Amino acid sequence: MRRVAVADVGITKFGVREASWKDLVQEAWVSLLQRSPNLDPRDIDSLFVGSAQPERFVYQSHVAPLVAELLGIRVSKMMARTEAACASGQAAIRFAWSTIAAGLSDVALVVGVEKMNNTDMLHVQSSMIDVADREFDGVNGLTAPPFFAMVAQRHMVEYGTTEEQLALVRVKSSHYSTHNPYAQFQKELSVDDVLNSKMVSPPLKLYDCSAITDGAVVALLVSEDIVRKYTDAPVWIVGGVQRCNSTNSINSLSDFTQWHSLREAANDLYRTYSITPNDLDFAEVHDCFTISEIMIYEELGLCKKGEGGKFIEEGQSHIGGTLPVNPSGGLLSNGHPLGATGLRQLYEAVVQMRGEVPRGRLVNGAELALAHNLSGMAVAHHLMLYSLNKR
Amino acid sequence: MRRVAVADVGITKFGVREASWKDLVQEAWVSLLQRSPNLDPRDIDSLFVGSAQPERFVYQSHVAPLVAELLGIRVSKMMARTEAACASGQAAIRFAWSTIAAGLSDVALVVGVEKMNNTDMLHVQSSMIDVADREFDGVNGLTAPPFFAMVAQRHMVEYGTTEEQLALVRVKSSHYSTHNPYAQFQKELSVDDVLNSKMVSPPLKLYDCSAITDGAVVALLVSEDIVRKYTDAPVWIVGGVQRCNSTNSINSLSDFTQWHSLREAANDLYRTYSITPNDLDFAEVHDCFTISEIMIYEELGLCKKGEGGKFIEEGQSHIGGTLPVNPSGGLLSNGHPLGATGLRQLYEAVVQMRGEVPRGRLVNGAELALAHNLSGMAVAHHLMLYSLNKR
Repeated sequence: MRRVAVADVGITKFGVREASWKDLVQEAWVSLLQRSPNLDPRDIDSLFVGSAQPERFVYQSHVAPLVAELLGIRVSKMMARTEAACASGQAAIRFAWSTIAAGLSDVALVVGVEKMNNTDMLHVQSSMIDVADREFDGVNGLTAPPFFAMVAQRHMVEYGTTEEQLALVRVKSSHYSTHNPYAQFQKELSVDDVLNSKMVSPPLKLYDCSAITDGAVVALLVSEDIVRKYTDAPVWIVGGVQRCNSTNSINSLSDFTQWHSLREAANDLYRTYSITPNDLDFAEVHDCFTISEIMIYEELGLCKKGEGGKFIEEGQSHIGGTLPVNPSGGLLSNGHPLGATGLRQLYEAVVQMRGEVPRGRLVNGAELALAHNLSGMAVAHHLMLYSLNKR
Repeated sequence: MRRVAVADVGITKFGVREASWKDLVQEAWVSLLQRSPNLDPRDIDSLFVGSAQPERFVYQSHVAPLVAELLGIRVSKMMARTEAACASGQAAIRFAWSTIAAGLSDVALVVGVEKMNNTDMLHVQSSMIDVADREFDGVNGLTAPPFFAMVAQRHMVEYGTTEEQLALVRVKSSHYSTHNPYAQFQKELSVDDVLNSKMVSPPLKLYDCSAITDGAVVALLVSEDIVRKYTDAPVWIVGGVQRCNSTNSINSLSDFTQWHSLREAANDLYRTYSITPNDLDFAEVHDCFTISEIMIYEELGLCKKGEGGKFIEEGQSHIGGTLPVNPSGGLLSNGHPLGATGLRQLYEAVVQMRGEVPRGRLVNGAELALAHNLSGMAVAHHLMLYSLNKR
């Protein structure tokens, strides 16, 4: 199996953008080209596009050939779009990784993109229900906020987690976002700001939730033998694992505060790649809601079950703490353009390890990063390991 | 790179089915289980679902974890849905192939499925426009029939192809379909039946067109070292190539009767895998319309450019001819449930090479098969080679 390197990345500003789906893809591509003087688009033999619901959000399907046209790429090996709801971008990374590792491609462009803000926001919101099992949860109008609100409620009951602790996740996120010019929200928020923001689904308030966002990120993945053509500082794909629940419907959940699939995935990852959480330098995780990040601390084994609230309170997920989590500002501050998020986490891994980020969010000397996406109502978890070293 | 084998396949009856998207997946899975006594579902570590537009057709996204739940599979390695419009199923095969070849998975289930007949057929038809570039062709209401009708018109003008020759493609298809119990249409048709069928988009009549179909097909792909656990007659994935046009919009096409991308893909395939069309025993190709199959003969190099009409007239694409094409009945008779079609072609390769099909459509001693999908307005072409021999 060949090693696969991330040669470079490109990104757009995230937010409510006066830009079409196509515009976003082109903007991220230009960003990559500017960073990669040695990239000749004719080198690219494969193209993978992670996008969750372009059919619903912008009425455009069959997007991979469209991206090829937009960017002037002639694909000769592999080309497809991947969909895994909120983890669609990471799925595209995985397809590229597999294809290059197998020797079926040498240079692949991976695109993560979503255009979510359009003129009919009610349609966009109803589209999000498709992510749940339509027959069981969809008919009940179960979108993400009420589901994660129930997780938060049970976590508060069972473990004494407080609304202030939830708020601290957003406070941390907002602090790092002031050093991230691509984030949708870059304003420092206080605990009171979060607690006093508009109620969405109790106990989750507006600032406990990630946003409906437009954005795109691209990455150039190449095989180990040619990476030096493109960069002297490749970031390597070490590996990844995935797990999904045995049920997709919350009707069948035995427990709201245990994400067994994530715990299993994390343990499998640590075992497979012979690491412990202590070996990680930072993590980019799927903080779609503040409670998600607290759950993720626990299921990744960064702290004991139920002590996620304490973990953030003690600053252990801050830069300088046990394990810096979401130095980018995460989904809460960057926003969550579904298909782009997995790529944005990879972007963060690359710019962090190369020391290219502003000092305020720099994890000094970082060499090994974990990326975590969840999808749907946390029914599936997707983990990747990125490293500055060829492991 | 590890060799990848198809251990077995399962299929549903294709047609206008009184069955949900979920029902179809389960029916194909049961078919696989019945054929594979040694398959323990716990062996499956990866899952790839090819489905083109479940968000639009059945309002269900995030389908991979849903399939895992339906079938009782616990995924531990790789899981995603692939989309490439009419080639979505082949894209799922490719993802599984890459992942196993790279050593990142050992046993993968590949599912191709589409539920297209629902209660709002106008919505389904408008969804199909998403496959074209929405900004250029979509706004003009360009669906597939008028596009392929324009190809047929130009082919008739430039090369003298006749409506009778187009009809002969359907006549062949219908003949083999009488030996295919899973096909949507199994009635033998005459040239007059085709010529007298309802006009859809001149010169294409109803029987020149494939249908709006429900169906699912599954395949079990495994690495070479463990295939003997599951079968004594594996079918091997030899390889595949893809190409796409430099433009997605028909506004920018320089020519309607040249599918340059397919010609390039075919030549690349022959060169890469050191074969000529003469080495092929049969081909399953994307005859979404009768004119498509005639174009495909030419671009695959089975005959000279412009002589596709003569090729079918002389019976050269019949069993016993130069190269049997679509002994399954193709898309014209099987119907075209978008995500399932690529898998149905693989199904045909497996049951043909194992001699499991009725004599009326059997290609005796077949060992090497070509599968071809096109997607969108023929803007992308996707080729795979399957073989009974480990090449």
